[in-house]
Amino acid sequence: MQYQFTVDGMTCGHCERAVVHAVRQVDTDAIVKVDLETKQVNVSSDKAARDAIANAIQEEGYKVLA
Amino acid sequence: MQYQFTVDGMTCGHCERAVVHAVRQVDTDAIVKVDLETKQVNVSSDKAARDAIANAIQEEGYKVLA
Repeated sequence: MQYQFTVDGMTCGHCERAVVHAVRQVDTDAIVKVDLETKQVNVSSDKAARDAIANAIQEEGYKVLA
Repeated sequence: MQYQFTVDGMTCGHCERAVVHAVRQVDTDAIVKVDLETKQVNVSSDKAARDAIANAIQEEGYKVLA
């Protein structure tokens, strides 16, 4: 499945890695692409549901806007 | 010794921890205070010279302006 999220609060490469890491905690094989400028996080995952991914990102301290 | 630096590029808590960690690599006992908003980094160190601390911060990817 392909998921797209708009995520607020990511400011730097550390944040990018933190979000990627958070998503990989719910699916170790997830492909995650982050665009800091547009706040877009694209996730390709065969295992994790959208809600689980969104929760993982929010638990890392970022706000999922959409 | 007390040192004050103005450091550009710190955007979030990860950056703050990265800078603190970088300073502690040249003096494990250093006391480091970071103010993200004013870009100020205050370091209290009995061992490290100002240049060594500035270099450690810059090697972490941040720009020491003053």
